[in-house]
Order: sequence, then C-alpha cells, then structure tokens
Amino acid sequence: MTLRLPVFLLALLMFFAPLASADELEAQANELIKRALASSLSYELTESLTTEIGPRLAGSAAEARARAWAVRNFESLGFDKIHIETFDMKGWERGQISIQVGAPYTQPLMGTALGKSVGTPVGGITAPVVRFADYAALLAADDDALTGKIAFIDGGMVRTQDGSGYGAAGLRRRVGAYEAAKRGAIGLLIRSVGTSHHRNPHTGGTSYRKGTPPIPAAALSNPDADQLARLMVLKPDLSIHFTQTSRFIGTVQSGNVIAEIPGSEFPDEVVLIAAHLDSWDNSPGVQDDGVGVGIVMAAAKLIQDFGQPKRTIRVVLFGAEEVGLYGAFEYVRAHQAAGDFDQIMMVTESDFGAGRVWRMDTGISKNDEAKADRIQLVLAPLGVTKGKRTASGGSDVSALTRAGAPAISLVQNGWNYFDLHHTPDDTLDKIDRSDVAQNTAVYAAYTWMVANIEGGFHPPEK
Amino acid sequence: MTLRLPVFLLALLMFFAPLASADELEAQANELIKRALASSLSYELTESLTTEIGPRLAGSAAEARARAWAVRNFESLGFDKIHIETFDMKGWERGQISIQVGAPYTQPLMGTALGKSVGTPVGGITAPVVRFADYAALLAADDDALTGKIAFIDGGMVRTQDGSGYGAAGLRRRVGAYEAAKRGAIGLLIRSVGTSHHRNPHTGGTSYRKGTPPIPAAALSNPDADQLARLMVLKPDLSIHFTQTSRFIGTVQSGNVIAEIPGSEFPDEVVLIAAHLDSWDNSPGVQDDGVGVGIVMAAAKLIQDFGQPKRTIRVVLFGAEEVGLYGAFEYVRAHQAAGDFDQIMMVTESDFGAGRVWRMDTGISKNDEAKADRIQLVLAPLGVTKGKRTASGGSDVSALTRAGAPAISLVQNGWNYFDLHHTPDDTLDKIDRSDVAQNTAVYAAYTWMVANIEGGFHPPEK
Repeated sequence: MTLRLPVFLLALLMFFAPLASADELEAQANELIKRALASSLSYELTESLTTEIGPRLAGSAAEARARAWAVRNFESLGFDKIHIETFDMKGWERGQISIQVGAPYTQPLMGTALGKSVGTPVGGITAPVVRFADYAALLAADDDALTGKIAFIDGGMVRTQDGSGYGAAGLRRRVGAYEAAKRGAIGLLIRSVGTSHHRNPHTGGTSYRKGTPPIPAAALSNPDADQLARLMVLKPDLSIHFTQTSRFIGTVQSGNVIAEIPGSEFPDEVVLIAAHLDSWDNSPGVQDDGVGVGIVMAAAKLIQDFGQPKRTIRVVLFGAEEVGLYGAFEYVRAHQAAGDFDQIMMVTESDFGAGRVWRMDTGISKNDEAKADRIQLVLAPLGVTKGKRTASGGSDVSALTRAGAPAISLVQNGWNYFDLHHTPDDTLDKIDRSDVAQNTAVYAAYTWMVANIEGGFHPPEK
Repeated sequence: MTLRLPVFLLALLMFFAPLASADELEAQANELIKRALASSLSYELTESLTTEIGPRLAGSAAEARARAWAVRNFESLGFDKIHIETFDMKGWERGQISIQVGAPYTQPLMGTALGKSVGTPVGGITAPVVRFADYAALLAADDDALTGKIAFIDGGMVRTQDGSGYGAAGLRRRVGAYEAAKRGAIGLLIRSVGTSHHRNPHTGGTSYRKGTPPIPAAALSNPDADQLARLMVLKPDLSIHFTQTSRFIGTVQSGNVIAEIPGSEFPDEVVLIAAHLDSWDNSPGVQDDGVGVGIVMAAAKLIQDFGQPKRTIRVVLFGAEEVGLYGAFEYVRAHQAAGDFDQIMMVTESDFGAGRVWRMDTGISKNDEAKADRIQLVLAPLGVTKGKRTASGGSDVSALTRAGAPAISLVQNGWNYFDLHHTPDDTLDKIDRSDVAQNTAVYAAYTWMVANIEGGFHPPEK
C-alpha cells in the first residue's frame, strides 16, 4: 500500500522529466522529489513528536516538552541557529464537563468545552434549551429571546476538498457565545463543527466581546446533537443541567522554535516554512499539526543533505496556534521590532493534515508569477495544479502575510480532515505514509526552488 | 436509499413466490414478509427507546424507565398478558477514570472501566506496566511475574461476519483480571475487544475468582493501546498512574418485560422471541440491543395484525443481559419453579445489531429438520442460507437452551458490529433502515411459521 503511489509517481516522473526542463534547478528539484518519496523521515518525526509528547496544549508543560523535542531533533539533524523565541500568554485548561438532559428524558450527552470558554458556576446551570437550526437562525432571534436559557446552535457542515465548509459552519463556534449572550443566554451548546459521525466532540477556540457576559460554551458530538434535536421535537422546552470547569489559569509561557539552513549567496533573504508545535489537549494532534512539523523538518533536512541553498531556509515551529495564532503574532511583533521582518521573502505552512497537496496558490507580485509557474510545473507530476492568485500561506503565517510577506499556499486535500480535526480521534493510525511522503516531496522541491530561483519573490501589489 | 433494497427484494419475492410453495403457510409467511418490508415500525420503536431513554444500565433508574416504555408500547400495540417479572441484583456503576502515562512521556490515555470492575484505592495506583502481546502471553508468565505491577494485555481482534473473532479476543476482558491478579498484578489494562479505530473504548463485563484479589480493570481504545505499545518500546519499564472510581452499589432491581399473542389451538405451546432492554451506560445502546427490541416487537405486531397464530407467541425483553444474563437466568429459575418452563417450544433472540440475517442455525430434534428447511426456503429470498445443526438461539436465550429449550438462531451479519458494540459510538445514525426491515421480515415470517407449523418443534437429541 505504501509503495503503490510512489512507484506510480516515479514512473510518471520518468515520463515527464525530459519534458519538464533541461534546466539545472528543475533537475535538482526532481532529484529532491525522488529522495523524499523514498524517505520515511517525515513520518518518523511525526510519530516521535506525537507519541513521545502526546497532546501539547498551548502554554502547558507538554508544549514546553515539545519545544525541547524540536530543539533536540533540529540539533541531531544538524541545523543551524537553533533557538526558541518565548512569549507569555494567558493559560487555559479544559477541566471536566457534564451535560445531563432533564426529565422525563434523563440521560447524559457527550460534549467538550470550546477552547477558552469560561466554566459554569460551581454546581452547574439548569435551564431550558432553545434550539436554533443554524447560526443564521440565532442572529434572527430577538434581543431578549434567550433570557435565562441555554442556546443550542445546530447546523451542518459541508464536506469539501479545500476545507471551505469549515469557515461558514465555524461561525457558531467562534462567535456563537457572544451572539447568544447578547440575547440573554446563560450557556451555549453547539453541534460540533466537523464531519465526524463518531462520539468525539470537536473543540476549537470561542470568543467573547466586551459588553456581554462570557457564558460557558461547549460542543456536542454529532450523534449527541442528533439526539438532542430529536428530544427537543418531543419536548421543545427540555431542560439541561450543564456543568463545566474550564478556566483561565493565569500567565504561562509558550514559544516558537526556529532553525535554519544558511543561504550561500543571499543569507539575508529568508524562505520560511512553518508548522505549529501545539495541539489541543484532547488528542496527540497528529494531523493538527504533528504531521506538519514532520513534513517541514524532513523537507529541510532533505535539502540540507542535498546541498546548500542560495537563500536562507528558516523552519519555524510556532507555539500557541490553536488558541489564536499567538506565536505567529509574537513572531511578527518581535521581528518587526528587531528590524529584520522584511528579510522574509516567502512564507508557507503545512497545517491542514496529511492529505496530498493538490493545488498551489500564490500571493506574490504579478512580476513573479512566471517563476511560480516554473515551480508548479515541477510539482505537477505529484498531482499539484495551478491555483488561485491569492494566498495566506497557511494558518500561522497568515499573520506574516498580513504584515506584508509574500506567500505560496500548498493546498492539501481536506476531504477527510474534519473527521478528525480538533477531536480526540486525531491519532497516528489515521495518516497514510505515502500521503505524508508526497507532502514532503512537494515541500522539499518547492522550498529548494524558491531558495534558489533567479530574482526571488516579492509581495503582491496592493 | 431506504427503498432500494426492499424494492429489489419484492421483485425477487414475486419471482420466487410461485416456486416456493402453493402451501397456505408459505403464502402467509410471504405476505408477512411483504408487509414487514413496507413497514418502518421496528425502526420507529428502536428510535423511540434509544432516544427517549438513552443508556439503560442494568438495575438503573433508566432501565426501569425502559421497562415502563416497553409496557406502554406493548399496551398501545394491543398485546396480551403484558407484565414485568422483576428480580434483585447487585448494582454497579462506572464512575470516573484517569490513566496517566508517567515521565518522561507524561500524557493521558483514554480508557473505560470494564463492567463490574472494582475501583482503585482513592488517589489511584502508580506502578510500572508490563505488556503482554496477547492473553496467551500472560498465561505463559510466571506466578509472581507481576507483583506490584499493572498488566497491559494487548492483542488484536479478527473481524468476521459471524462474530467469531470476539470470543477468542474476549478472553483478556473476561478473565484477564483474574489471571493477572494471580501473578501479583495490582491493576489491569487491556486493548479494547473491538474493531473500532476511533477513540471510543470498549467496555463489557469482567470477572474475578475466589482466592485472588479483585483488581481494577479497564480497556484502552485501540488508538490508545497503539500509543501505549509504542511508548513501551521506548521505555519498557514505563509507569502509569491509574485512578478509577467504579464500584458496586448494593442491591438494585431489574426485570423482564413480557407480552403475548395467545395461541388459538395450542395456547400452552410457546414460541418465544426475545431481545434485551438493558444496555451499557456509555451509549444509547442502539445496536446492542435497542434494535433487537424494535425487531421482535414489530415482528409480533405484524403477526397480530395479520391473524391469530395457533401457538402462543411470547415476546420477552430481558433485563440485565450485559452484566451476565441475569434476566435470562431468572426467567429459567422462575418458570421452572412455576412448572411452566417446558411450555416453551422454541426460542430465538435478536441481539447482534442491525446487520441482515444471512443464516439460520437449528438446535432442534433431527425429526423436525424438514420443518426447519421449509422455513429456511421461505427466508431464502431475503438472503438467509441454511446453517449449522447447533444453535443457542442468542445471548439471553442460551440460558433457556441450556435448560432444554429448542432453539433456532437467525444469524446476522456482524462484519461491522464490533466497530460500535459496547462503545460510546452505538448510536442511531449507525443503523440502516432497510437492514432493520429485512430483520423484521425474517422474524415475522419465521415466527409465524413456527407458531403454525404442523407438529411443532422438539428439543435436540442428547
């Protein structure tokens, strides 16, 4: 199974190679692809991080151990300028949860706190539930429609290859607590923002706004949301007893781990490839984002073994992504303050699981598009198509893009991503070795070409 | 989707009907099949029980509500002699669990108490873990190999259509605690006895024996067992901190709910069809065994609407199956004491999920085999083949078979059953309406023919 597609791809490469280019850069990239497809380093690093550290909540002792793991592994792989850039943040912990349906249908439901949710008062809250078919239905409710009630925001999520179903469905998680509290609600339950049909509720950050009280918010697994919806047909004024001990725990430390391959000709032009070290606390965070860490570390190591790039390649493993891109914002702040932020010539992040890269989007100057096309043509035999002329580069690095950095997004197949993402089910058995190797090959060839291509890349025109 | 297969089956029936027999009994059975495939009653009853009551642990208030639900529904469906036969039992509750891997790999693992396990001392136990590749490896260990240790029994489970993989793999759950304690262990962890790759650990009863201390026992989900196995390669003397608050809670009440369709000619000859009302507490128990309740209730109702059978049809919904067939043993005891046990002319139970019936096994007198063949030929167009000449009839009713009752097993396809069985994932979304209708059709036709066939059935020769 593992060898099936790589062999097929190698055959394709042999076919395309003469067509692609006689150019040296293309030949080098093709050699890196060949080596990456034959390597299991990215999978091994992913297994090591997610097995040895397990869940890595932002600001936790486990996240600190993950930073030590990264430094140790960067060192043993022979990288340069390995260091940690630490920062303080507000710590949060999930605590315990209990969601009990009231009489006559007394029964427990499975849920999990939304990230950064407050807890309930000690002893919990008991209140009637008001169901909204989706987030839009909540917005249509009157200002005092939920006084003393628990809001239940139901609604589906569309499965897509590019993850676009997540943004729309995610509103109920990201701002549902605010909109419910504004209408008087004392608690919020949402249907998990995910496509899993297993009883593994989906967490992810929620938010509050000034002027409305923060209310405890949790997600029900999809089967539990089904159950609650059925029960509310039987009894529209059903009550729920909801107890949650999630809480903020004061100031804690996180950090970004950085390592480099110095450039031979243009050491101050930086090609930045990234992933994030933290995960939610309910899983070992394999797809999100242990495998991204494995992919970018292994891609850089393959390059290092291959030869020195003209530009500097900087691998950044961000901290505290899940709770709000804290590491990325700190990176921008610190490097703008240090005056070296503009050295970044390109940013790209692997943070969408282990599905194959199938599209390359560009957020660069129009004048550089032909160079991007050269790269895409080399990646085409791996299944990578030409994409949109807009790109954030990925989750964390979108903060760098917003601060002006050029970006290329190597878009992964996310068809199954939200079956696992942010649930307890994000475990090692769910990723495929040959898919991981395809990603590594894409990153190695892409990064090598960006780091060596004549003229480099520039930010998109405003 | 729902209509696809029934339509196909109806077409098949129209084709086979003239071949099958011109006999009146066969024609009646075929009419019942037609009605059952067009009915959604079994699905509706399953949805009602598992939604309105939810989890139904033996001896709990929820199980008592399930008995009231059964009586209410038997009454509204117009059954006869509806009553509950109660009995006392030792109550047990799952409590909370925490399994923490020790340094340097500090992280939580997901598990659940095995049914009827004792808890740990308050504050938990901390001890090195000893891994056994499977149950046989534990049996090969020395008598004092585990003194002061926690045993971890790993091992797979073979996926099969007939569920035969479960029996062998289940030894680690059923008697692992005894064998580990005999060798000095102070706690037991096992890999879930199930085929689920999700983080939903599999519960199910464990047992202790006199002469060895009862030790706390829990199952890890399959991904967590993978994780522990990987960690123990890195550190073979890994420690675990294990806390579990499961406990026995004194005497509680359970009961069997019984309803009948009286026989017109032989009211004292009883055709017994069964399912069980209780479930484990970690799910709404849809496949195990809400759907069995729906199937046998609906099959009997279809018969009642069709016409009075010559023999009495008795529907028995047993209590407290999961914890050790308590309801079934009580049924045998009470009815042997009352002197009417031998009225039972046949027993069959639906307790293997919602997969289609594909085989008919017989545990009857050799002289009655031709009659069983007549029934199987009617069921053949539904996909039911002739099976083995030995049958327990099903889980609970195996207690009745052991006490001498003839049995026919209507064997279901269990290929996916252990993806859900005894896990939190045993929810309504996992069953297929057309599969449930096929089961109902099989039960209706089968039960009608047994209740009317000339000469009836007799126990197998010793």
